[in-house]
Amino acid sequence: MPSKKIRLGFIGGGNDSLIGVLHKVAAVMFDRYQIIGGVFSSNQEINKATAIDLGLDLSRVYNDYEEMAKVESGLDSEKKIEAVCILTPNFLHFPMAKTFLKNGFHVICEKPLSITLNEALELRDIKESNNLVFAVTHTYTGYPMVRQMTKMISEDVIGEIQRVDSTYFQGWINDIIHDKDQRKSTWRLNPEVSGISSCLADIGTHAFNMLELVCGMKVKKILADLNNLYDDNPLDIDVSVLVRMENGCKGTIRSTQIATGLENSLSISVYGSKGSLAWEQENPNYLYHYTSDKPLQVLKPGHAYNTNLSLDGTKLPAGHPEGIFDAMGNIYRGVARAIRLEKNEKGEFPTIQEGVRGMEFIEKAVKSNKNGNIWVELDS
Amino acid sequence: MPSKKIRLGFIGGGNDSLIGVLHKVAAVMFDRYQIIGGVFSSNQEINKATAIDLGLDLSRVYNDYEEMAKVESGLDSEKKIEAVCILTPNFLHFPMAKTFLKNGFHVICEKPLSITLNEALELRDIKESNNLVFAVTHTYTGYPMVRQMTKMISEDVIGEIQRVDSTYFQGWINDIIHDKDQRKSTWRLNPEVSGISSCLADIGTHAFNMLELVCGMKVKKILADLNNLYDDNPLDIDVSVLVRMENGCKGTIRSTQIATGLENSLSISVYGSKGSLAWEQENPNYLYHYTSDKPLQVLKPGHAYNTNLSLDGTKLPAGHPEGIFDAMGNIYRGVARAIRLEKNEKGEFPTIQEGVRGMEFIEKAVKSNKNGNIWVELDS
Amino acid sequence: MPSKKIRLGFIGGGNDSLIGVLHKVAAVMFDRYQIIGGVFSSNQEINKATAIDLGLDLSRVYNDYEEMAKVESGLDSEKKIEAVCILTPNFLHFPMAKTFLKNGFHVICEKPLSITLNEALELRDIKESNNLVFAVTHTYTGYPMVRQMTKMISEDVIGEIQRVDSTYFQGWINDIIHDKDQRKSTWRLNPEVSGISSCLADIGTHAFNMLELVCGMKVKKILADLNNLYDDNPLDIDVSVLVRMENGCKGTIRSTQIATGLENSLSISVYGSKGSLAWEQENPNYLYHYTSDKPLQVLKPGHAYNTNLSLDGTKLPAGHPEGIFDAMGNIYRGVARAIRLEKNEKGEFPTIQEGVRGMEFIEKAVKSNKNGNIWVELDS
Amino acid sequence: MPSKKIRLGFIGGGNDSLIGVLHKVAAVMFDRYQIIGGVFSSNQEINKATAIDLGLDLSRVYNDYEEMAKVESGLDSEKKIEAVCILTPNFLHFPMAKTFLKNGFHVICEKPLSITLNEALELRDIKESNNLVFAVTHTYTGYPMVRQMTKMISEDVIGEIQRVDSTYFQGWINDIIHDKDQRKSTWRLNPEVSGISSCLADIGTHAFNMLELVCGMKVKKILADLNNLYDDNPLDIDVSVLVRMENGCKGTIRSTQIATGLENSLSISVYGSKGSLAWEQENPNYLYHYTSDKPLQVLKPGHAYNTNLSLDGTKLPAGHPEGIFDAMGNIYRGVARAIRLEKNEKGEFPTIQEGVRGMEFIEKAVKSNKNGNIWVELDS
Repeated sequence: MPSKKIRLGFIGGGNDSLIGVLHKVAAVMFDRYQIIGGVFSSNQEINKATAIDLGLDLSRVYNDYEEMAKVESGLDSEKKIEAVCILTPNFLHFPMAKTFLKNGFHVICEKPLSITLNEALELRDIKESNNLVFAVTHTYTGYPMVRQMTKMISEDVIGEIQRVDSTYFQGWINDIIHDKDQRKSTWRLNPEVSGISSCLADIGTHAFNMLELVCGMKVKKILADLNNLYDDNPLDIDVSVLVRMENGCKGTIRSTQIATGLENSLSISVYGSKGSLAWEQENPNYLYHYTSDKPLQVLKPGHAYNTNLSLDGTKLPAGHPEGIFDAMGNIYRGVARAIRLEKNEKGEFPTIQEGVRGMEFIEKAVKSNKNGNIWVELDS
Repeated sequence: MPSKKIRLGFIGGGNDSLIGVLHKVAAVMFDRYQIIGGVFSSNQEINKATAIDLGLDLSRVYNDYEEMAKVESGLDSEKKIEAVCILTPNFLHFPMAKTFLKNGFHVICEKPLSITLNEALELRDIKESNNLVFAVTHTYTGYPMVRQMTKMISEDVIGEIQRVDSTYFQGWINDIIHDKDQRKSTWRLNPEVSGISSCLADIGTHAFNMLELVCGMKVKKILADLNNLYDDNPLDIDVSVLVRMENGCKGTIRSTQIATGLENSLSISVYGSKGSLAWEQENPNYLYHYTSDKPLQVLKPGHAYNTNLSLDGTKLPAGHPEGIFDAMGNIYRGVARAIRLEKNEKGEFPTIQEGVRGMEFIEKAVKSNKNGNIWVELDS
Repeated sequence: MPSKKIRLGFIGGGNDSLIGVLHKVAAVMFDRYQIIGGVFSSNQEINKATAIDLGLDLSRVYNDYEEMAKVESGLDSEKKIEAVCILTPNFLHFPMAKTFLKNGFHVICEKPLSITLNEALELRDIKESNNLVFAVTHTYTGYPMVRQMTKMISEDVIGEIQRVDSTYFQGWINDIIHDKDQRKSTWRLNPEVSGISSCLADIGTHAFNMLELVCGMKVKKILADLNNLYDDNPLDIDVSVLVRMENGCKGTIRSTQIATGLENSLSISVYGSKGSLAWEQENPNYLYHYTSDKPLQVLKPGHAYNTNLSLDGTKLPAGHPEGIFDAMGNIYRGVARAIRLEKNEKGEFPTIQEGVRGMEFIEKAVKSNKNGNIWVELDS
Repeated sequence: MPSKKIRLGFIGGGNDSLIGVLHKVAAVMFDRYQIIGGVFSSNQEINKATAIDLGLDLSRVYNDYEEMAKVESGLDSEKKIEAVCILTPNFLHFPMAKTFLKNGFHVICEKPLSITLNEALELRDIKESNNLVFAVTHTYTGYPMVRQMTKMISEDVIGEIQRVDSTYFQGWINDIIHDKDQRKSTWRLNPEVSGISSCLADIGTHAFNMLELVCGMKVKKILADLNNLYDDNPLDIDVSVLVRMENGCKGTIRSTQIATGLENSLSISVYGSKGSLAWEQENPNYLYHYTSDKPLQVLKPGHAYNTNLSLDGTKLPAGHPEGIFDAMGNIYRGVARAIRLEKNEKGEFPTIQEGVRGMEFIEKAVKSNKNGNIWVELDS
């Protein structure tokens, strides 16, 4: 029986990479991928250490992506990597994706897809000729309530769209931008690495993608106002865009990296002739549905009233916020550390003593109630 | 080099089990466990199918837990399962945990630990004699902001505790309880399977555990008022408990399964002489810190102002709600389905076309701005 | 034509009284009362100054309540005060209310009604014999969404009530209670002035009243756990009460004055067989309606979907929070100060300059749009 | 002693006017105004009925504003109206305000100030020549937390402003706009009555005013995109504006009347180099203060940490939302109706029975506690 699991290779995502954690966990979440090898870092020490941590066969760890593409292409079809996951700086996405697509690998690539539109169009052409799967990881589109919003709009629940607003506000660059040295040294503001844009490329593109996705229609034209804040800063860090959608409706896309103190405030509102829908990423389990004549309705994941597309993205019953996976993950890690005698800090996981106390609580509570609601002591 | 990974066996958690999904994802989240085998279901078809989905060596899949304990105990120390994860109905926790502890396996066990307090005490004794790790999966204790709350209280941020309230409200049993047939047939209300309690054992024990954990002190005595609602229902489904803590302070534990329409509303508030802290599980990224003379402070995960214990439980920068792992997991699954030609529904993952559009948005926005904020069309 | 306005007398509520402000504004809000006179303070200077501020005929201002009752009783029926408003310390409510009731005045009295239950019963007897109107100002019952909640429950929207929780948490006494001198000197903790209770009498009674009101049924019995925190403090400052309602359902009333940092957190939740309702005083415009099978519904004042009783308590269209009256009041006061040349601080009210700017904004925005979305300068 | 009270005349605000209620209550809220007379409606029946309800001397009620201005101007300075309050349709603001200003009356005028910018400038000139007070009732500026936000920004709490967003979203016109007959007949969309704009003039101007107020600086230039939605609708109902502030910073003003289901969603966010502030009108008691390195701070009215300007606008202790005045007002009205035997519906005000029950609750709770936490029955 052929495995349902896909053999996956990583480009980037070494032990020192934040985005690497996210991709590694996501890849194993549904038992659909097996990480085989790759180039985890241009730093060969990190590259190797990451592979060892993942328990990989080191013969599948490569010095660079060209070597990887060449060697893997020559392997047996039962053995070779089927898909690659590209997590490198923006300017490397294009050459890497191009090489792997040309050699017949499916590609999962971080955004933005490339540095220029022409590069993106070229990738699209190769992908289509070779009939491969290509995903750009606009992660936020994976939330159950984004899926629900998309479906509700496509099913005409809010009628004809008459106004749209998509927003992505962060504040992190504020700590950098006002210091001349820092703003010169960050790679985000270096056009050679980041291309023609900082804010648009990093987060504006998420707001744009979310808008086209949930509306199920294209942005037809835009009028943009970009702000670099300092004359010696070559890239935008704050953006307001007027948009005109395919159906003629108007609205805005706004994104900024100087909303001081804001974390990751991505939100989208779509106003239709029969109602409106709003969602925000920092509280992703709530979808707000407004109408003229009924109370505000707040939809949450996992309920039968959601569409199949949304329910497919929910793994636990209603009321368990998606993050519960992370909570359980923390507990499992704590247990692993204790078993391996690495660390055993109170608070990392609930021990048998907590289990004993729980049982005592249950028995004593039943006893208190049975005896006419009297006080009962706990002593375990 | 010995693997950092722990060889893990499952008892329960077959393909048809919700809680199984949670444990499997959590186990792999930090690359610290490798699932080796076990008894995934008493239904042998599900047992086998689960093992195949996990890509396991079928020789490590057993018909029952006794066989598993026996065979695994006899294996090489480099090969045998090191820890077992018990996800079976409540009344089976005790015999299973006892067997594996006696044979030298670490145990991760779902709550409640057992059916009676005596069983729990017996397990604690064996665990301590054999010097093993034993975790009871009170999942909610794994949240970064619960860890933060626990640490802040232990570090005297809110002073002497002077009132406590821990609450766990659900509504799911309402759909069952008012129908005589249904309330007779659900295993939750069957004392033979569930022991002496429904609501206390299922969720009250979480509220109790959370209270002792975050306060860093024991509940000294309790006075309980239980409600079965119907005379022919033998178990509590609604509970109010007065508590007296070790330091003499007063408060309540309340839990119910008849709060119609509520999902999973676990919350804890601790009031001290210098301030108060409150947290709720349905919005787990927010910790509220109240004082008399300053504005309400809202703490969120991942910021440098958090304690190390909290930061250790956060995997991504501030503003990325923990559930983002789940969102990315959904995308990876969609890609896997597309690669395997199983399914390819629009909305399951962002394709290269979305990447192309993103690049066009960036270039055209920069162009609009450069030309004095004029309209520019998008046509890719 | 007889005036619709009721001639009202005040006992207490002088210029130094916070609660006085609330009653005076409420009395005039719907043009149904005319304040005629009274005893505004036992301090005769404050008494007189208040009357002058109110523009009253000083012959209707009295030295004490006995004099007031005597003189007013003797006046012409067209002229004499019809109703009195009692805003004095708790222990004075009873003798004052008794005196005025006996003399045929309607009474509006702050809570708690009296110091003992016997006093309260006596007042009820007199009121009923004399066929007078008597209101106890449980202010919170006046909110439109409390009225809506009450009506929805009486109309069986949530079915049979199966659990109730009413809560009133404040933190103000925390700043006093830990200091021996302060806790000895505050009148709230002095049994001679406050009676047998501090927390119960001050706020617990609101939580109790709200519970009986919205449920439309009585509390049948209670089991209470009171906390004085210090041995030398004679009165409760923290309370947990188990309740049994008339229909047998269970629940809690909790109130405290040591929830450090909390302001005025009154909330009520009622769980029924068909759904649940929840409301909290600090965000009084939201009523939450939970059911098993539909999204959470959030009701707000002023919408046609509300009951008549609720709509009757809403003065402006939906979306104007009730506090808008206060905002407008602040502006009017600023204007008055400017006219009287008392004060004219920027920010107290919007001047004609703001009006001019507003007009320029409108004209220039229309101009920008008309010319193809170009930049237009504002220069007024 | 001259009265502190200002003699006020109304133009508009008859019994059938919603905005009239707001102005009448605000005027009396601080005992600073006495309503003397005016022209409450062009419908003479309503005009008179309103005056009678207010208990006014009918000789001060006029047929039209010209008559009113003429007669009042001739009265004794001790007797004549000092200030007028103009609450008529937009196109009448200018001639009325002009007439009263010319005759030496202070003016309180609803927004928008006029139909054209030229009219507004003319009013400003007259007002300044005659040295009168002129207020435009941008009501929302009266909220304590708007005052707090304004002051914090002027005191450099958030540093140099680097981005601004002001928003006013409503949905009410959606029910009208899609029906050809309705959109032709509403006065809001009739240029002869409303001038050159609907959405900008009605609500956009509030968003604009709020922006200039809280930032303490002017908008320098704008680029606007207006939407009429239908070709036969002559006025804007949806607006997006790019702004450039005096200090060069960028941002947006957005206002719409087609955000279906939204009520009155006015909000303002100001992002500075040291932090950010955000406020929204539908939850006016919360001011959000974001910084890079500390937890989010939530400021609320009435606390000592607020500025004097803010505290001056707060009438009750912290935790009493401003709307409590309205709640108390509802109770007073209910009592008035009962006294006048007009109506006496349960739920309109708490009666003595509720007071008795409250006393019983207190006594019985103390008794339960004193006897070791036993059940005690309530029977009053």
